[in-house]
Amino acid sequence: MLTEADEEAPPLTEPLLNNHLQFQLRRSASNTTSQVAIVGSNVCPIESLDYEIIENDFFKQDWRSRGKIQIFQYIFMKWSLCFLIGLFAGLVGFLINLAVENIAGIKFVITSNMMLEKRYATAFGVFAASNFVLILFSSVITTFIAPAAAGSGIPEVKAYLNGVDAPGIFSPWTLVVKVVGSIIAVSSSLNIGKAGPLVHTGACIASLLGQGGSKKYGITWRWIRFFKNDRDRRDLVTCGSAAGIAAAFRAPVGGVLFALEEMASWWRSALLWRAFFTAAVVAIVLRSLIDVCNSGKCGLFGKGGLIMFDVTSENVTYHLVDVPPVLVLGIIGGILGSIYNFLLERVLRVYNLINEKGYAYKILLACSISIFTSCCLFGLPWLAPCRPCPTDAIEACPTIGRSGNYKKFQCPPGHYNDLASLFFNTNDDAIRNLFSKGTDTEFHHISILIFFVTCYILSIFSYGVVAPAGLFVPLIVTGAGYGRFIGMLMGSQSNLNHGLFAVLGAASLLGGSMRMTVSLCVILLELTNNLLLLPMIMLVLLVSKTVADTFNGNIYDIIMKLKGFPYLEAHAEPYMRQLTVGDVVTGPLQCFNGIEKVRNIVHVLKTTRHHGFPVIDEPPFSDCPVLSGLVLRAHLIVLLKKKVFLPTPVLTGTDITKRFSANDFAKRGSGNNDHIEDIEVTEEEMDMYIDLHPFTNASPYTVVETMSLAKALILFREVGLRHLLVVPKTSNRSSVVGVLTRHDFMPEHILGLHPFLIRSRWKKLRLRPASLTKLF
Amino acid sequence: MLTEADEEAPPLTEPLLNNHLQFQLRRSASNTTSQVAIVGSNVCPIESLDYEIIENDFFKQDWRSRGKIQIFQYIFMKWSLCFLIGLFAGLVGFLINLAVENIAGIKFVITSNMMLEKRYATAFGVFAASNFVLILFSSVITTFIAPAAAGSGIPEVKAYLNGVDAPGIFSPWTLVVKVVGSIIAVSSSLNIGKAGPLVHTGACIASLLGQGGSKKYGITWRWIRFFKNDRDRRDLVTCGSAAGIAAAFRAPVGGVLFALEEMASWWRSALLWRAFFTAAVVAIVLRSLIDVCNSGKCGLFGKGGLIMFDVTSENVTYHLVDVPPVLVLGIIGGILGSIYNFLLERVLRVYNLINEKGYAYKILLACSISIFTSCCLFGLPWLAPCRPCPTDAIEACPTIGRSGNYKKFQCPPGHYNDLASLFFNTNDDAIRNLFSKGTDTEFHHISILIFFVTCYILSIFSYGVVAPAGLFVPLIVTGAGYGRFIGMLMGSQSNLNHGLFAVLGAASLLGGSMRMTVSLCVILLELTNNLLLLPMIMLVLLVSKTVADTFNGNIYDIIMKLKGFPYLEAHAEPYMRQLTVGDVVTGPLQCFNGIEKVRNIVHVLKTTRHHGFPVIDEPPFSDCPVLSGLVLRAHLIVLLKKKVFLPTPVLTGTDITKRFSANDFAKRGSGNNDHIEDIEVTEEEMDMYIDLHPFTNASPYTVVETMSLAKALILFREVGLRHLLVVPKTSNRSSVVGVLTRHDFMPEHILGLHPFLIRSRWKKLRLRPASLTKLF
Repeated sequence: MLTEADEEAPPLTEPLLNNHLQFQLRRSASNTTSQVAIVGSNVCPIESLDYEIIENDFFKQDWRSRGKIQIFQYIFMKWSLCFLIGLFAGLVGFLINLAVENIAGIKFVITSNMMLEKRYATAFGVFAASNFVLILFSSVITTFIAPAAAGSGIPEVKAYLNGVDAPGIFSPWTLVVKVVGSIIAVSSSLNIGKAGPLVHTGACIASLLGQGGSKKYGITWRWIRFFKNDRDRRDLVTCGSAAGIAAAFRAPVGGVLFALEEMASWWRSALLWRAFFTAAVVAIVLRSLIDVCNSGKCGLFGKGGLIMFDVTSENVTYHLVDVPPVLVLGIIGGILGSIYNFLLERVLRVYNLINEKGYAYKILLACSISIFTSCCLFGLPWLAPCRPCPTDAIEACPTIGRSGNYKKFQCPPGHYNDLASLFFNTNDDAIRNLFSKGTDTEFHHISILIFFVTCYILSIFSYGVVAPAGLFVPLIVTGAGYGRFIGMLMGSQSNLNHGLFAVLGAASLLGGSMRMTVSLCVILLELTNNLLLLPMIMLVLLVSKTVADTFNGNIYDIIMKLKGFPYLEAHAEPYMRQLTVGDVVTGPLQCFNGIEKVRNIVHVLKTTRHHGFPVIDEPPFSDCPVLSGLVLRAHLIVLLKKKVFLPTPVLTGTDITKRFSANDFAKRGSGNNDHIEDIEVTEEEMDMYIDLHPFTNASPYTVVETMSLAKALILFREVGLRHLLVVPKTSNRSSVVGVLTRHDFMPEHILGLHPFLIRSRWKKLRLRPASLTKLF
Repeated sequence: MLTEADEEAPPLTEPLLNNHLQFQLRRSASNTTSQVAIVGSNVCPIESLDYEIIENDFFKQDWRSRGKIQIFQYIFMKWSLCFLIGLFAGLVGFLINLAVENIAGIKFVITSNMMLEKRYATAFGVFAASNFVLILFSSVITTFIAPAAAGSGIPEVKAYLNGVDAPGIFSPWTLVVKVVGSIIAVSSSLNIGKAGPLVHTGACIASLLGQGGSKKYGITWRWIRFFKNDRDRRDLVTCGSAAGIAAAFRAPVGGVLFALEEMASWWRSALLWRAFFTAAVVAIVLRSLIDVCNSGKCGLFGKGGLIMFDVTSENVTYHLVDVPPVLVLGIIGGILGSIYNFLLERVLRVYNLINEKGYAYKILLACSISIFTSCCLFGLPWLAPCRPCPTDAIEACPTIGRSGNYKKFQCPPGHYNDLASLFFNTNDDAIRNLFSKGTDTEFHHISILIFFVTCYILSIFSYGVVAPAGLFVPLIVTGAGYGRFIGMLMGSQSNLNHGLFAVLGAASLLGGSMRMTVSLCVILLELTNNLLLLPMIMLVLLVSKTVADTFNGNIYDIIMKLKGFPYLEAHAEPYMRQLTVGDVVTGPLQCFNGIEKVRNIVHVLKTTRHHGFPVIDEPPFSDCPVLSGLVLRAHLIVLLKKKVFLPTPVLTGTDITKRFSANDFAKRGSGNNDHIEDIEVTEEEMDMYIDLHPFTNASPYTVVETMSLAKALILFREVGLRHLLVVPKTSNRSSVVGVLTRHDFMPEHILGLHPFLIRSRWKKLRLRPASLTKLF
């Protein structure tokens, strides 16, 4: 049987009851794949989630006893929680935008005013110092309060939805630090986004609501404690991540599709509906709040704020002749995106080494990136020539005394610095400037090139800092610069305006790095509010994704791998067809008798870290050894805690279940489980017995040991299992051979057991770009 | 073991080799659930599709022998076929629109001209006669050439994607009749749509391309014969159905979501991407063709044609005060939608009785509906008062000599008949009129009410005729009328214009009848090209779906049930948790030995209709009876045909596989399979042996007989099986107990075996509205 945290298990000293089963072990090697992963910048043990319905007698009794009222209550609670998730995600999304626009806005207004007075050095000082203080604050709270809040959080949520439960990612403190840290970090002009953190925030809200608050911090609500298993929580977290994107981009349909395409590993039609409802709530909340802001009550949060670029309210016209430039844009965008992924991975590896050295190093790293960024943002606009204000500008030019377009910077009156209006602005404003049409003459192509290159580099170096940081917005802003530059190079050869090129450039870079299609397309459409762009954006996304897929994988998968999450892919690797389940099952296997001695249970629980144990009925309770089912560690601990012991080994019947309520067996939020060490059992009780039958899942999924590994993986993944029992092919041996867990399907484990596969062509096939095996 | 068409199997006379296995049968009752279903209006036998990868030695050899070039060729072909599906679906979609606009347009122009000359009786005669001839032609070709082309086709495609292969639904003649019949039937002014038929057309194109043409009709392409199994074809058909909606509404994202939400039972991320690509091709094809038409080369197919309503190019403004009327709209829409489903089911039941009586009755039914419709469309506008032309009309008023708005009908010069401009027009034009803004004064509320009621009734009676007929457009047009009527009732109490009310009304009726959310929302957004409507449409869809779900199910599921397709739901019914697999497995079970006599194989194949047989190794080839795997009927027939017989029962090794190519075992398109009756085996050969081992799927999925039925269903459904082997719990009996197929999970079968469940509360729970159990 495989352990999830095997390295801590001491060697067995006392002989166990089911010792005779050991002869079945093919191999005594234990699973050496990662049982720990990097969460935030700390290394943590990882647990799997269990999506199987544990059908034991107790569950069936509980199920039968549920009246119609309880069922309706359950459904009602599911919808209410979705409503609450949408409401909170919308409020938080709005809060983040409002705060960023105001904090960053005030900073820009103050420095701009100093620039007007030609106090350039002071302006730089104030600008750099405020950025420094902001990022210092953000990285300090992240490091010391909630390291799991660092980064975008999307890889963590994606792994959670795949069944990997990293501790702390959904704790209340993570939520607080994520929101506050994200506001501060984005305000510090670092080239990072707020979309990723919002997805994590949405998932966090969903998880906390789903488990009825946090017991650890005493914030609990009894009346929402309806969701006692991982399945219900998974659904809520999926809705939460949809709400996050919906709130970040005011893109409800895009949010649902993002959750579906990128985040979720399991999906049902009912879930689509609930996610859609959650996103609709977000959209309505944002709409109402923006109505309030439009009357001018939100400070510097003007019409912009929540990025929504009405790029082209008139009709866009394009014809087949415009397709070739768009193809070129997509191809180069795909290449740039895959290079981006490659470089980001390298940078993150280096950062990991630095971060490992200690807290001071982490914070120092963040601060140096901030200083470097400040220098770039303040220094580079000096390279750009001043341009005369357009005579027909709708906005005041140059902009004075408020955040906006046409930054004056160092220019004489009646002129503006085009590079400063990109650099010396929030990312949202920069994107809006780049996306807007009728601005073909506003920027010089050298300025755009400088902007694109700087953003590309800054976004690679900024992501890894110890603060909440997203990837969406940096990629959009960089891609918009790239698209506009290509548009300028095309010049009169294309009918498309440069704003449109910027949108397509953003699409190409997003597609090249994130490798999503439908969701990115819809998000961009909802951002630009122009459905006529659809065929063009589709085309560019398909091209850039295809090109980039030939080089490397999706950025979130790269980060997930770097963090060591045991993510279970939906498709089997080709070499898995050549192996059987028996080839990967490892030992030692721990079983229990149907009626087991307390001493044995306590001993096994203390000496192993297994989370599920096969239960075997042996004579005299059956004619021959028969597999009775699977019992979970968590349930055993409940039994020990309640002390439902028998003086002699006899069958108890189902009466015993009446001593328990469904809540006793409810799965708590992560980190709140009881541990075997906390349970005290007297020496007398040690010699008593427990009848495990009523608490054993009598319908565990099983595979025969000769089953091909690929097919076992499909079963494991599609049904969402945590433990898969392996039974022998012939009946003359004992009734169970081993237990497969998530880790047994990890390529590292399999290739470790069968090194010859690395040399075979099956391994080579595996090393082909991920896309090819996926397609296959 | 369960049969798929058991009723034809004669009782066993000759004792079979594995006779001794019969003692295992718990129950000799055979499965009595529908093995036949109504396709079109004929009753046909139904087969299941098999999505499992048959991992036998031969398959593994073939897999290993595949070089990189073959793999790339395979991937390339997948994408090329998606491109072709998109291309053809786009072309067909355009063709249908072009033809309908021209045929119906000419009809309306001719009758309108007669009306101008006040030859009202002649006008009615021409109108009614042309409608009559059109529907007669359409129903005749449907009845005599391809009955499977009748109706919308969406239920058939949905069932196919669930694994139910109804014969003839994807044949070339079905395709031709669907396209031609749809053009003619829609042109005949019947209140039916073209979206459903386009989905079927897209799926048909995909299926024909996927199986490399049709062997039966000699249209085959060797070079596209790459897809030898049901999985690949399923993916292509999914893409095809996405392309259908994309072509019908010029809504590529909506099409993909429709395929995802409503059609597909299995979905992978890679499939999302390919469906998206297909839909993008459709969008680009349509865009190019419309560019051509805009220059006026398409006859009466003017700017309209492909429905695309730029409802409100300016900003829509709405506030929280507009929410209550929208809620009311959604609630009533949900009720109307569920009543619609209820009535449609009743009408279809009556029509089925009529259709059963013979060809003449079917055609007569269609013709009488046509006459009734003609009377309504021509007669009802006389009830409406003439309205003076608006002074500021952009279009000429009244419209003379072409199809368009402001129909003069019987009115004096300078006046128009508002009801005629809805009734006496194509559905597309009527929808555009209703959706357009700034037309609040154009219609009288009595006219709109008459229009709504008539459309509601006509659409219920029109769907069941024997001709290709969709449901989308009738529901949109009816809903638009309903929405506008509510808008008029609201009057000045709401800020929303009547065009917007029409859009929301269409959404509410669609949501109430089809019960989709995300896909309908996106389709409507893409139709109206206004993303600002999003929160409103979302809200109305959620409300109407919720309300309607408390009464009955989705219209496609109702039709599917009526047709008798054994659709496998994704969720288990509550009572299934109380049953074990052993409770539903029925007999008789037919097994083969690993090395089997030809005579036995031929006999079993001839006397049963089973499609899969467990293979059991018995002494002397193993120590005790051991389950070796599952062999398919299709593979056995190939073996018999190739006559790979052995004179004595010995193991052959894998050399024998060299005598076969992968193509021999490739699954052909439906209806092209060899039958056992066609194979001649001499008496000498009858006494020879076949070694089944290399052709046996050695990794079949198995469940223990004590497994709960609910969990077995989850496995069966999630993994996409056709056969699921049931093995005994204890090892002292033989190695296989039975085989589960799709029919064993049908509620009719289970409740037939266990009638007490009908009385229990579990049955009651099942009879709750479908939504509740789904949610659960």
